[in-house]
Amino acid sequence: MSLPKRIDIHEVGPREGMQIEKNPIATADKIRLVDLLSECGFPEIEVTSFVSPKWVPQMADAEQVVAGIRVRPGTAYTGIYLNRQGMVRALKTGKLTVLGKLGVTASETFSRKNTNRSIDETIAEAQDRIEAAREWNVPITEIGVMAAFGCNYEGDVDLGRVVDLIARLLAIGQAHALPIQLIQLSDTMGWANPNSIRRLVGMVRERWPEHRINLHLHDTRGLGLANAVAAMEMGVDDFDSAVGGLGGCPYGGFKDAAGNIVTEDLVHLCAEMGVETGVDLDRVVEVAREAEAIIGRPLPGKVMRGGHFSSYRR
Amino acid sequence: MSLPKRIDIHEVGPREGMQIEKNPIATADKIRLVDLLSECGFPEIEVTSFVSPKWVPQMADAEQVVAGIRVRPGTAYTGIYLNRQGMVRALKTGKLTVLGKLGVTASETFSRKNTNRSIDETIAEAQDRIEAAREWNVPITEIGVMAAFGCNYEGDVDLGRVVDLIARLLAIGQAHALPIQLIQLSDTMGWANPNSIRRLVGMVRERWPEHRINLHLHDTRGLGLANAVAAMEMGVDDFDSAVGGLGGCPYGGFKDAAGNIVTEDLVHLCAEMGVETGVDLDRVVEVAREAEAIIGRPLPGKVMRGGHFSSYRR
Repeated sequence: MSLPKRIDIHEVGPREGMQIEKNPIATADKIRLVDLLSECGFPEIEVTSFVSPKWVPQMADAEQVVAGIRVRPGTAYTGIYLNRQGMVRALKTGKLTVLGKLGVTASETFSRKNTNRSIDETIAEAQDRIEAAREWNVPITEIGVMAAFGCNYEGDVDLGRVVDLIARLLAIGQAHALPIQLIQLSDTMGWANPNSIRRLVGMVRERWPEHRINLHLHDTRGLGLANAVAAMEMGVDDFDSAVGGLGGCPYGGFKDAAGNIVTEDLVHLCAEMGVETGVDLDRVVEVAREAEAIIGRPLPGKVMRGGHFSSYRR
Repeated sequence: MSLPKRIDIHEVGPREGMQIEKNPIATADKIRLVDLLSECGFPEIEVTSFVSPKWVPQMADAEQVVAGIRVRPGTAYTGIYLNRQGMVRALKTGKLTVLGKLGVTASETFSRKNTNRSIDETIAEAQDRIEAAREWNVPITEIGVMAAFGCNYEGDVDLGRVVDLIARLLAIGQAHALPIQLIQLSDTMGWANPNSIRRLVGMVRERWPEHRINLHLHDTRGLGLANAVAAMEMGVDDFDSAVGGLGGCPYGGFKDAAGNIVTEDLVHLCAEMGVETGVDLDRVVEVAREAEAIIGRPLPGKVMRGGHFSSYRR
């Protein structure tokens, strides 16, 4: 089975993790977590979200967090935003790498619940987003489909529909000469399995071989790392994950469901299978334990509890 | 990727789970757990261990547990034993399926720590075990290697050594005309990864194609289900697992490490990938929640928290 020689791991814990916790996390702790992650060697750390504090009060300190972090060369620090206002907030920090993305959700119901817009409305808004990005010189380099494998409200998602949505977004990108490089497939509610990963990744790669694929996997039903292995075997070399397994999947009545795949468990897996990540496993395990202390509840990461193997191999 | 049409799942939670908990579990709760599992459709439920109550006080009520359970046709109820005395205790319950096994550990250090015997001493004792089994008419149908992929005390285990140990045990079996059908490979401390699974399973299958392989996987580093997928892709159709992820891996200073792979997460995986298990997913998820209530601490199972898909497919 042939695996990529190297993958990129995008650490999304500070953003996905902090936005879901019920107890408030101190701004200083958020800054400390990002600074600790900066020592680990990630190509990207998703630091925060520039969204309305009315809807996501946990992210009201986005600017203060970014102001407080130490930026290390070699890592891109990013923030999520959903509209022009958020994009401008991210830009005004002066410290973040700000890129544009055209995103859509494959489930009509989840699209409305998550963003208060239908799929077609979301696609129609791409025009505004492209104009805002052009105005502020932000390159749009990515398209993405959320709930690409299934949805807690609608059930199975037809993979053909996902491919159609990608085609629509890429057509918009082409019409506006956007420098789209990446297609992100998000298993937002943990519906994927190794077979559906292979099917969808295979369909996307066959149709758009020149685009890189990123997988954003959730471990909602425990299949996250099995899915990552299946994806790597299909040549996928770009993954999101969260240190300690921060975050969650609080949809469809499941408040305590697991979050993103666990960064350090993915790094361990890659180390064992000879796939380079550039991430320091010893350090990221320490950060996972620190993240658990900050959050104040047990996180699902396994390697931080079971230990890894570097001491045996020295 | 070709998967088995059907796999057998051996539920080991009542045995592996109960022997590790620090707080005493009431005998009535142990009985109730087994009775609930009996409704799920497993071919085998490992009920208890017939070991010395001096060493494993949690199993001192082995006889009472077996006396209390309701035996359902179609399920084999078994108990673990390590010597003639334990075997006779299991037989005297009159309710268990008692089969013999020749087992050995691939790590010298773990062998001594776990059983107070070297590898060679363990193999030398096979003679006694065979005599005792013959005397009591117990067929020895299985050989097994523990720590077959690595060890928290010795590190990586040479897979060639594992193959040699299997060859030695099978030679003993042949010399005594034992009806050995199954080769069990146990990743006792969670060292396997999909590559090492493929390598070892491939070596064993090539050399002994007439024997069925059982995998006893631990999720110590989060790779349990990825390893199960890799094994199924190699044709393995026989697995141990524990409801809710009961049990642990308390070796090498890691007291809170994860236990066996999670039964209901494995059943969900199989259901999603079109592999029959004969296990009722709805029921086993309910039992996992009940097991968590009995144990009184969060168990690592994911599907019981994230929900499964049967409601969407009805």
